[in-house]
Amino acid sequence: MHILITGAAGMIGRKLTARLIAAKALNDRPLERLTLLDVSAPQRPESFSGQVESMGADIADDDAARAAIANRPDVIFHLAAVVSGEAELDFEKGVRVNFDGSRALLEAVRGAGTDYRPRFVFASSIAVFGAPFPESIPDDFALTPLTSYGTQKATVELMLADYTRRGFVDGVGIRLPNIVVRPGKPNKAASGFFSSIIREPLNGEEAVLPVDDGVRNWHASPRAAVSFLLHAAALDGTALGPRINLTMPGVCCTVAEQIASLRRIAGDKVAMRIRRAPDPLVQRIVGGWPSRFDPRRALALGFKAEASFDEIIRAHIDDELGGRIAS
Amino acid sequence: MHILITGAAGMIGRKLTARLIAAKALNDRPLERLTLLDVSAPQRPESFSGQVESMGADIADDDAARAAIANRPDVIFHLAAVVSGEAELDFEKGVRVNFDGSRALLEAVRGAGTDYRPRFVFASSIAVFGAPFPESIPDDFALTPLTSYGTQKATVELMLADYTRRGFVDGVGIRLPNIVVRPGKPNKAASGFFSSIIREPLNGEEAVLPVDDGVRNWHASPRAAVSFLLHAAALDGTALGPRINLTMPGVCCTVAEQIASLRRIAGDKVAMRIRRAPDPLVQRIVGGWPSRFDPRRALALGFKAEASFDEIIRAHIDDELGGRIAS
Repeated sequence: MHILITGAAGMIGRKLTARLIAAKALNDRPLERLTLLDVSAPQRPESFSGQVESMGADIADDDAARAAIANRPDVIFHLAAVVSGEAELDFEKGVRVNFDGSRALLEAVRGAGTDYRPRFVFASSIAVFGAPFPESIPDDFALTPLTSYGTQKATVELMLADYTRRGFVDGVGIRLPNIVVRPGKPNKAASGFFSSIIREPLNGEEAVLPVDDGVRNWHASPRAAVSFLLHAAALDGTALGPRINLTMPGVCCTVAEQIASLRRIAGDKVAMRIRRAPDPLVQRIVGGWPSRFDPRRALALGFKAEASFDEIIRAHIDDELGGRIAS
Repeated sequence: MHILITGAAGMIGRKLTARLIAAKALNDRPLERLTLLDVSAPQRPESFSGQVESMGADIADDDAARAAIANRPDVIFHLAAVVSGEAELDFEKGVRVNFDGSRALLEAVRGAGTDYRPRFVFASSIAVFGAPFPESIPDDFALTPLTSYGTQKATVELMLADYTRRGFVDGVGIRLPNIVVRPGKPNKAASGFFSSIIREPLNGEEAVLPVDDGVRNWHASPRAAVSFLLHAAALDGTALGPRINLTMPGVCCTVAEQIASLRRIAGDKVAMRIRRAPDPLVQRIVGGWPSRFDPRRALALGFKAEASFDEIIRAHIDDELGGRIAS
């Protein structure tokens, strides 16, 4: 089994690489070879005895895309993307990486010949949806993104479905929920507080909450996101049918419910480290995001998210903090 | 008022040009200048005293797209497209004309500067939808095209919405119903019979019906299609909101109802000129098409289709046959 991961140096890419290496296999076939691509060549993983090719390349470059699939990976995890905030600030860069990059990769696969039809797992996003929303968003709801990032993800979803229908590739698109708790330092993303109000208090640090307690979102852990990708790689394409893009399950909860979870798990003292500092801009941006889905198709196809926000916090404590909380 | 029409040599393009010239104005502003673009330079319209530029060009060529908007048309009607059957047979040509061509035109507008923001009316299609469908398709139904043509139209819709949201252009996408009765000779399109079972009998000729009488579709006349385009050009963008792509109203009817209309209007003898010759392939293709919509937003915004298939036939008799029927 040869696997290509684009965006392999990102948070999800690194966790996916580590899980694959630990599992030593994918879809019951032994993992023999990894091609890891990112803007800068990703670090070679330790503890993997198979062949590794680490590529630093611009995925929107046709030659780079062709080089990435030159050795015909069996499964492609296409995670490479410019994030939402950057795609909004730099329109051309967002289009180039998120749309043209995906197209270059799909075209490279198409150009490799009719006997090459790899499983192509595309990391899409619930940002393909834009307000106004029904109480719960069904699987057949219109894609009406309100950001350039969401638009780029949605156009790639459509392209991937057509390439799959025509037999150029064997695609599955998965719309990831808001991924929380993200490890690492606080960042300036509008969604950053969803992670930081859990992560910083658990580290003994203060976190700032810029929105009111009633704000809802659709959450899954980094661990669940990796599980979604692995499950998508193993899906039976015929069970999927022509609608190959799926909204992933998640946990719908309010900020108040997130804080209640933190208090249950880590105690009052930790939960008290959240300071309220309302920011109307963040409140407005986050208010337009989808927050509740009815992802029946993904559930029927066996995708599993956490059952509660408590589980999401515990996954973070286990995976990032070695099971320990700063009291 | 300066108007650019791409695909100006096509059936709808010619009718739109004629209607604009007859009206001498658009949105209460006198028509002064026309730029007509198609693969081969469109014929210069007679009876127009204003300035006409006729361009034969490949719209997917960036220089051609820039040349088309060099004189800053106030309104752009973007009709240029490779039709459904051809886009399915020739994938690369379909992508090049339908997707890259639209993108080149939008990029040309974006590149012309922040003080240029023309109304951009995009002729989309109900082919952006793909089975399975609910009984009646709502405005917020998912785009799940089952053809490359439908995919290309859907991706341009998304791109147009983002360019509009960002202020690069003032876009409106209208999803045209099946346009019937198309004038001219029978063609090989899978949808061709919807027109030919009316057109040929009215001309005293035999028509072949390849599907069963229960097949439904969503119809509007060429006259209604031109009215949709003109109405879209006049729409208030703020009333439209961010969901700028609209399913047009139409007449939902079965083939049996089409034939009953023909009999009512032209008599038994004419209706008897339809010969049944079932073609399972055509039946299968047409069976996957959407046939009934609930286009509330378009109706609320003032778009008007025919109220019955009788009206569609009468529009054809008036517009193409000078009011006369071969008995």
